[in-house]
Amino acid sequence: MEKSCNIILLGTGAIGSYYCGKLQQAGAKISAVCRSDYETVKSEGINIKSIKGDFIFTPDETVNSISKSSFNADYIVIATKALPSIDIISLIKPKLLEHTAIILIQNGIDVEISLHKAFPNNEIISCIAFICVTRESYGKVSHADYGRLVIGNYPKGVSEKANHIAKLFNSVGVDCETQDEILYARWKKLIWNIPFNSMSVLANRASTKEIMDNENSAIIAKKIMKEVVSIAKSEGYLINDEVIEKNLADTAKMTPYKTSMLLDFENSRPMEVEAIIGNTFRIAQKNSISVPIIEALYAMLSVVNDKLMS
Amino acid sequence: MEKSCNIILLGTGAIGSYYCGKLQQAGAKISAVCRSDYETVKSEGINIKSIKGDFIFTPDETVNSISKSSFNADYIVIATKALPSIDIISLIKPKLLEHTAIILIQNGIDVEISLHKAFPNNEIISCIAFICVTRESYGKVSHADYGRLVIGNYPKGVSEKANHIAKLFNSVGVDCETQDEILYARWKKLIWNIPFNSMSVLANRASTKEIMDNENSAIIAKKIMKEVVSIAKSEGYLINDEVIEKNLADTAKMTPYKTSMLLDFENSRPMEVEAIIGNTFRIAQKNSISVPIIEALYAMLSVVNDKLMS
Repeated sequence: MEKSCNIILLGTGAIGSYYCGKLQQAGAKISAVCRSDYETVKSEGINIKSIKGDFIFTPDETVNSISKSSFNADYIVIATKALPSIDIISLIKPKLLEHTAIILIQNGIDVEISLHKAFPNNEIISCIAFICVTRESYGKVSHADYGRLVIGNYPKGVSEKANHIAKLFNSVGVDCETQDEILYARWKKLIWNIPFNSMSVLANRASTKEIMDNENSAIIAKKIMKEVVSIAKSEGYLINDEVIEKNLADTAKMTPYKTSMLLDFENSRPMEVEAIIGNTFRIAQKNSISVPIIEALYAMLSVVNDKLMS
Repeated sequence: MEKSCNIILLGTGAIGSYYCGKLQQAGAKISAVCRSDYETVKSEGINIKSIKGDFIFTPDETVNSISKSSFNADYIVIATKALPSIDIISLIKPKLLEHTAIILIQNGIDVEISLHKAFPNNEIISCIAFICVTRESYGKVSHADYGRLVIGNYPKGVSEKANHIAKLFNSVGVDCETQDEILYARWKKLIWNIPFNSMSVLANRASTKEIMDNENSAIIAKKIMKEVVSIAKSEGYLINDEVIEKNLADTAKMTPYKTSMLLDFENSRPMEVEAIIGNTFRIAQKNSISVPIIEALYAMLSVVNDKLMS
């Protein structure tokens, strides 16, 4: 077993609970910061039904505010949704020590940048989760499919600490791959996330199958992917057409799937529009790349988000 | 009063009932072809609550199939929705005499072309309605706002018969303007119809106000209008930027409004996606005009329509 370490977890939703539950199994100590689910987690822990084997994650410490955590953290895991309304910087500032690394498990692009500016001397380990996991209710998480993580330092590289975390994950059966260019991995995930998240919400809650079965929207999925590739290219990340073809072929074959934005929409929760598509569009604007479809999707999703939050 | 004439009306929805009710007031005889509303219309007529004064429209003859109409029609009014599933040609063929003119009151573009090809020797009078009118239930129509008609022959010109109809309308207070280039008028209406119909459905049932209040979607509305203008231009219809600015300014000021596509969507009825946006996109393709946003809107609306009809 790797040497133990102290981790503060912010966000006991599905992602944070599953991955920190696994890190605990690998020997890490977890101080979980809860909000509305505090009483449930403190008394019952988090019950995780997983295709890889059910388990109960009982944090070593459960608190209802980060300031109450007793840990000198080696890592702070941020597994909240990537929403402009959540001020991560103010939240973690009081507990961030010189040696604390920030582990960010979130969707989207440019989600690390404000943390990097606020805490330039703290290491940021950026993680992309490929997992189908849902919090059914407080203290109840269901892991239905996948589980792979890709991790690397922001903006690039793989530090000793990042390697340490990857080893912990792999030691308990979580497939965790280190990636020297984590932003490259983020762009590759956006190629799928932007078309299918956007269209699933805008086209009246369409499943991936409904989008791929309609000839017009299958063509548009591909055109959106090409727009994403052109933005990635303007940032220096070259992605070839085979990646697009593979994404489309895999999606056509997969079990009809509800995207994360669609799940948020159906549950009247704010969607990660800015992290996934707004930030992407702003990079395109900065680099003068014309992406008319992405711009239109972003605009319509902004209206939908306005309505969800009004 | 103008000389009387015999009219067969196909489609006793809101549009057909209102305008043929007014033509009857102007002296025309109306044979109304009903479908599911036949019993109601035959026994009670059509009750029209109108901002311009309520009235009951009792057709001179009410039949449940066009073949049962006793009229030798001077005009056949087609006021059904413009849907690919409705085979107008087969419906009217048995009652179309040499002198019968076809009056088409429908949304969209290229909605006359199949009739023109099928019946090249019959006059087609194409009408665009600017009206806020709804069928609340069988035999009950509510006219909430506007009412203006623009009419002209397809593909161009204004015949004696078209002038006759315009005079009938104007004689009973329906503002009816003849237009030598009816397709020009159709393009001008599409400038508004395409952005606001599409976005109202795709952006989670957004009102015109919600679209104009969001900075991103107000910009997209304008970009979509520019795409429509570029297609119109490729067909020889020049529309200047002031038309776009006026459409946007008027929409920002108007009472929040539900578009016709949104009303259909909310009532789980098929939307006029092909007539309004599919045909527009196909004209762009034919003329090699790039309209990425319209193409994406069309694709997503196709998925929504597939789901409505499945």
